[in-house]
Amino acid sequence: MINGHGDDAFRFGRPIRANFSSNVYAHVDQEPLLAHLRSRLEVIRNYPEPEPYRLEKALSARLGIDPASVCVTSGATEAIYLIAQAFHGAHSTVFQPAFNEYADACRLHGHTVVSCVQPECPAPVSGKQALVWICNPNNPTGGVIPKSELKALISSHPETVFVMDASYGFFTREALLAPAEAVCYPNLIQLHSMTKRYAMPGLRLGYMTGPAALIERIRSCRMPWSVNALAVEAGLFLTDHPDTAPIDRDALFAETDRLRTQINALPGVEALPTQTHFFLCRLAAGRAADLKHYLAEKQGILIRDASNFEGLDARYFRIATQTPVENDALVCALGAWLQREEVQR
Amino acid sequence: MINGHGDDAFRFGRPIRANFSSNVYAHVDQEPLLAHLRSRLEVIRNYPEPEPYRLEKALSARLGIDPASVCVTSGATEAIYLIAQAFHGAHSTVFQPAFNEYADACRLHGHTVVSCVQPECPAPVSGKQALVWICNPNNPTGGVIPKSELKALISSHPETVFVMDASYGFFTREALLAPAEAVCYPNLIQLHSMTKRYAMPGLRLGYMTGPAALIERIRSCRMPWSVNALAVEAGLFLTDHPDTAPIDRDALFAETDRLRTQINALPGVEALPTQTHFFLCRLAAGRAADLKHYLAEKQGILIRDASNFEGLDARYFRIATQTPVENDALVCALGAWLQREEVQR
Repeated sequence: MINGHGDDAFRFGRPIRANFSSNVYAHVDQEPLLAHLRSRLEVIRNYPEPEPYRLEKALSARLGIDPASVCVTSGATEAIYLIAQAFHGAHSTVFQPAFNEYADACRLHGHTVVSCVQPECPAPVSGKQALVWICNPNNPTGGVIPKSELKALISSHPETVFVMDASYGFFTREALLAPAEAVCYPNLIQLHSMTKRYAMPGLRLGYMTGPAALIERIRSCRMPWSVNALAVEAGLFLTDHPDTAPIDRDALFAETDRLRTQINALPGVEALPTQTHFFLCRLAAGRAADLKHYLAEKQGILIRDASNFEGLDARYFRIATQTPVENDALVCALGAWLQREEVQR
Repeated sequence: MINGHGDDAFRFGRPIRANFSSNVYAHVDQEPLLAHLRSRLEVIRNYPEPEPYRLEKALSARLGIDPASVCVTSGATEAIYLIAQAFHGAHSTVFQPAFNEYADACRLHGHTVVSCVQPECPAPVSGKQALVWICNPNNPTGGVIPKSELKALISSHPETVFVMDASYGFFTREALLAPAEAVCYPNLIQLHSMTKRYAMPGLRLGYMTGPAALIERIRSCRMPWSVNALAVEAGLFLTDHPDTAPIDRDALFAETDRLRTQINALPGVEALPTQTHFFLCRLAAGRAADLKHYLAEKQGILIRDASNFEGLDARYFRIATQTPVENDALVCALGAWLQREEVQR
């Protein structure tokens, strides 16, 4: 899906002062990373390694797994498209609503794609490899599946390949499968994003972990030099300095609770429960697309119209918690729009 | 092909003082570009546009073609893989020897791949789309096909899609098809590289041009955000300031002639003719792989072992002309190796 994602400030005529539209928490101290990149900009003069060997080695050491179990990609998105390609023509089940790219990548590579609303396995289809795609913590709902439930599901379907997108793994208090634990399952691939943790989606850096045999199959589908030299440089720096951009998660989750409570105090909108720092909201009346347009054009505030997620409808939008000042501005602007709509009705 | 490309300094234990191994002429003034990127590093905080709309528009304006005829990619390599994917299962003819990625991308996407030594069209294969891949100027030989010959070939095979890699288009005195001229052919896609002209292969930036219908078909295969935000930033800057990193081509070609003459004065090696700034060399005896190893480990000089290009063998290596001082160092080191080999024989 090219159009319809968040972080689409480029569509609007005026500057955006507060951006709730991607699941990135923007207020991390990037100065150490930026200073490092500034000092290493000359890496653009050479080709990056055809595959990011050094970074894969550094990450594997930090995760306590074999380098053959790590594949660094141009954002987690490249991993999604490579997996879909490696299993061309498979039967894919997507736990919905979820990040649209799973189903899009699968369709592009000839998969049969079916949806389910609970993580479950499809009935076997003769001659087709079965894949199950699960986003956990889930985008857009913020839900986390109990770890024991996931382990049971994966173990009890050894012929099915599970793709678990753990891009938001840092942003929850719930128990998750750690990469070192996850690589022991022969039928599980985990996706990880450096973008979300360090608020640098412009660089394009993610990775997948899994058993060497599965990773090797996927790796054989990639083109050389897909990860740019500055992304590699950032990855090496962040692997060496993981605490360089601290996020106070307790404060972020407390602020998420406060923001949801404030939104729920407004008439005509409901903030749904979440187990991470982003969450869905549902309008009682009116369209999220209109709200988004009003907030962007009149208030310089960007939200994610979530109506294009499968299983949702025109009433849904998604919010990623930001600073208290920004969150208050959102509540205020949202209240103004709801009041205006009410008067017009 | 992941391994076996040039610019592989990462393989060697010692620093490389002169790099002849990729086709990049490294000595351009990058300071204006680096200064611009340094001042705009904060673009990494946001997602790039899902497709690089602004840059495609800017490039199309400069080239005098429709924006629908331009697709910006993560290096020309992404374009190669997208084209192979868009024509899954096609019958591809590659004019060899050529950049290995054409055949690799085609095989990955289920093409039948055949080679030819002159640009020619395959006999029609029932039910299969025919593609012809031509690198012009050609990597690794440096040859340029006469423009009139190319035009006749493309016109006389309207059912065949021609993919013309013009990555080295800046680096020749020969007449080439300009993008504005080329987009009028309904069956021609041209690949372009910003990497080569501006010596920034680490950023990953290229583009393809062609008739809107073909470009649209290829565009529909791409993932979102494949071009990173700093590559887009560099592309916008260079499109606005095309003369920011001047290269004196006359001097570069004269130096190429001088370097070839010097190499040809050595016994036991021949520098083959070229129409660009890089060229093949052939050893009378011994292996290019051994020469490469000696030059890298003993002299800090990197060349491209060209033995893995189809149609070449263990005697071939490729050189891209650099500064006179570096070129003299290469001739001296090459002479030393040849003398050592002669003594040992």
